[in-house]
Amino acid sequence: MNDESTQRYQTRMQKKKAVVDARIAQANESRGVLILLKGAGKGKSSSAFGTLARTLGHGYQAAVVQFIKGRRETGEYLFFRDHPALEWHIMGHGFTWETQDQAQDKAAAEAAWAVTERLLQDERYRLLILDEMSYMLKYGHLSVERVVQALQQRPKTQNVMITGRTMAQPLQAIADTISDVGDERHAFRGGVKAQAGIEY
Amino acid sequence: MNDESTQRYQTRMQKKKAVVDARIAQANESRGVLILLKGAGKGKSSSAFGTLARTLGHGYQAAVVQFIKGRRETGEYLFFRDHPALEWHIMGHGFTWETQDQAQDKAAAEAAWAVTERLLQDERYRLLILDEMSYMLKYGHLSVERVVQALQQRPKTQNVMITGRTMAQPLQAIADTISDVGDERHAFRGGVKAQAGIEY
Repeated sequence: MNDESTQRYQTRMQKKKAVVDARIAQANESRGVLILLKGAGKGKSSSAFGTLARTLGHGYQAAVVQFIKGRRETGEYLFFRDHPALEWHIMGHGFTWETQDQAQDKAAAEAAWAVTERLLQDERYRLLILDEMSYMLKYGHLSVERVVQALQQRPKTQNVMITGRTMAQPLQAIADTISDVGDERHAFRGGVKAQAGIEY
Repeated sequence: MNDESTQRYQTRMQKKKAVVDARIAQANESRGVLILLKGAGKGKSSSAFGTLARTLGHGYQAAVVQFIKGRRETGEYLFFRDHPALEWHIMGHGFTWETQDQAQDKAAAEAAWAVTERLLQDERYRLLILDEMSYMLKYGHLSVERVVQALQQRPKTQNVMITGRTMAQPLQAIADTISDVGDERHAFRGGVKAQAGIEY
């Protein structure tokens, strides 16, 4: 590296620092947020579980409600289930395309929502993960007004993450953070089988 | 629900099941994959750490190399650091816009890559997470050819996840899965301060 490129690098980074510092100074409100992880790409539920580790790592309590029960024992469940600051509810009774029974699916959604409403009223939980909850709205198993109301009335310090491919507009309207995970490529379409530790 | 809507629901789900089953039947190769998590949206590193929990939950060994050391003690580090099947390396010495020193940044990248090369030759590690590694290529601290070669020569069962906003084209060319996490909204821009358990 010559002196000129070193100087350029330093100038570039000084500018970047000024921008970053200004942004940090502007964001000064402390409160729980609603985060939506949508889109067809890989990484939505795993992002929620990474955030769960992050929250537990700081000594907070958390809870997970899984609205679709796919496989019996996922790696994340095996890993987290014995953590003392965590409640984990596997609700639902299978992928909807496996069960093909609307009444049963709706009853399962109601049961999962009853658990969720209790958690949404308890400020001891710093983070709630509502995994695959968006499908309950897509298929009309839950009323979006009821869901929005319960989310809006939750404790001020509580963070909520909801995952699922599509997100109802009223949910998006009240969200603080929305990440849209695009599926640019997936190993599955390249012929690679779903594997323990990566897909489940 | 009347009989007609019940019937429609069942038909819809039967069609979905047929599509899902056909796709599953086609994907029958078993091997480690390279997953890239790029884009400006929230959820890339957290997705990698969720996958880490998933991999550890199935009893596999894993390793993390963090190429940019931001905060000293993140929630994920506090949470995972004592796990017996995990190696965690916090390399780098700060955000580049804080250090503003190119020679020091390059030396830190080299040291992190030396650790990574060792891990990429060791089949005991089922999953490697190279967190924020893409910046090393963006700023020219590492050679992309060297990175690509080491990734291609890794053990067949090893999964690798790389996170970062931008991804060099040669990395994208050899990836099995690419998720592009779009930043549709972020609480930070809404004035909410970064908080323990969510951002770090």
